[in-house]
Amino acid sequence: MFKSSMAISPTPAVFAPLLFAGDWPAALDAAVDLSYDAIEISVRDPDDPAVVACDEAVRRRGLQLSAIATGQSFYSDGWSPISDDPEVRTLLDERMYRIIELASPWNAMVVIGGVRGTLTGSEVHRGDQYERAVEAVGRYAEYGRANGVSLVIEPINRYETNYINTIQEALHFIRDVGQDNLGVLADTFHMNIEEANLAESLRSAGDRIRHVQFTDSNRLAAGRGHIDFPELAAVLRESGYGGYLSTETLPLPDSRTAAKQAIDYFRTL
Amino acid sequence: MFKSSMAISPTPAVFAPLLFAGDWPAALDAAVDLSYDAIEISVRDPDDPAVVACDEAVRRRGLQLSAIATGQSFYSDGWSPISDDPEVRTLLDERMYRIIELASPWNAMVVIGGVRGTLTGSEVHRGDQYERAVEAVGRYAEYGRANGVSLVIEPINRYETNYINTIQEALHFIRDVGQDNLGVLADTFHMNIEEANLAESLRSAGDRIRHVQFTDSNRLAAGRGHIDFPELAAVLRESGYGGYLSTETLPLPDSRTAAKQAIDYFRTL
Repeated sequence: MFKSSMAISPTPAVFAPLLFAGDWPAALDAAVDLSYDAIEISVRDPDDPAVVACDEAVRRRGLQLSAIATGQSFYSDGWSPISDDPEVRTLLDERMYRIIELASPWNAMVVIGGVRGTLTGSEVHRGDQYERAVEAVGRYAEYGRANGVSLVIEPINRYETNYINTIQEALHFIRDVGQDNLGVLADTFHMNIEEANLAESLRSAGDRIRHVQFTDSNRLAAGRGHIDFPELAAVLRESGYGGYLSTETLPLPDSRTAAKQAIDYFRTL
Repeated sequence: MFKSSMAISPTPAVFAPLLFAGDWPAALDAAVDLSYDAIEISVRDPDDPAVVACDEAVRRRGLQLSAIATGQSFYSDGWSPISDDPEVRTLLDERMYRIIELASPWNAMVVIGGVRGTLTGSEVHRGDQYERAVEAVGRYAEYGRANGVSLVIEPINRYETNYINTIQEALHFIRDVGQDNLGVLADTFHMNIEEANLAESLRSAGDRIRHVQFTDSNRLAAGRGHIDFPELAAVLRESGYGGYLSTETLPLPDSRTAAKQAIDYFRTL
């Protein structure tokens, strides 16, 4: 039996596939009612009162915080570690350190996904930007180690970013950074577009898979599309995966229904 | 045994998944060498000398012209039938009529895909734009009937357009237009993202499926990703599909190799 988690946003979010965006009390009510183990929060500003209040309520309601996603810094503020503006990079560093501090008491994963942004310009410029990402994630990983926090690199499909689309590319990036507290977040929605063989990609990454989002091929709750989750769950068991199955889906037909569909499906795995 | 076709662009194209873009002589050489039955061309301006020369050469080389794709009018010129600018709509109408005339002697399908553009603004405005698309495709279909040409509506995934993403939505659009010479182009790359069950979606559309692009989940040649093509081919046979299997892929590792991979795979179906 895997642990279960639900990806929400305590604040309204530009990024669509999050449940209960802007309504964390309803999210926690649903999580408790449906017996989720944990909540995963998408955070722009870790000092936002809604984030602080949500964090406290997660504790009070007896839930866990499984992970903190960081993409809103790019989607809402345009901040990314590859920015050409050193001031933006400094602002983002400071925010990421605060997010790592927020994750620390929970032993929650910090997700490096959409925050990576998109490489631009000439091949040389893109190479420089990639190096900046390697260096920035190296700094975050060091700060994470000092705080007992691991980071996970999330491969994202080609339509949303132009680098680190596949699990192999994430593993390559992790080797470039060269730190132990870095793993991979496998999101099956992205894998369905990018991986030639989903099960084989998961298997080949072995214990580098540190967090998993079981989202279906159409970005709805697992079981609403065509991904073969039983096969992927078997691979995770073989690999000794002891983490969460998280649901990061579009709030369709509504957040509560999607949350119920996901956990009902997870229980069959 | 299905007939085979290869999607190319006689001119350089903004739209990436086309083989031999800008080099139609190499495309026709490859098609003849590899024993493709037909070529499918992506056309911006049907009077472009490269298009005219390619059309003549297809005939001379003993190939067929299976279909003409029209998305470049939107991707390169911003022309779409839903444009708020009546002048653009008139320019596009004239171009579409010329494309239908080009298709006529071949009995080739004219594809209504990317040219649809993207709905914008308020819900009311989007409704008006959708109505414009219905009316425009009605005009194209009438002109097509007068010229013995059928049109196919291609569902395209959510990242490339915000309307007609699924086969069901295409069938709904066709009912709204209400003409007989309208069918569906099923592109498995898009279906992999949008259809909850690919085989069931194909089956439910029955003989409205008039053209098929067997492109794999990662937009490479069939066989390079995880789509279950044997299952889909069986559905097409059951439906009595007598059209082409076309390959519309990224030119990776290069156009010639992708063309060979696709037809080698098609021969196994």
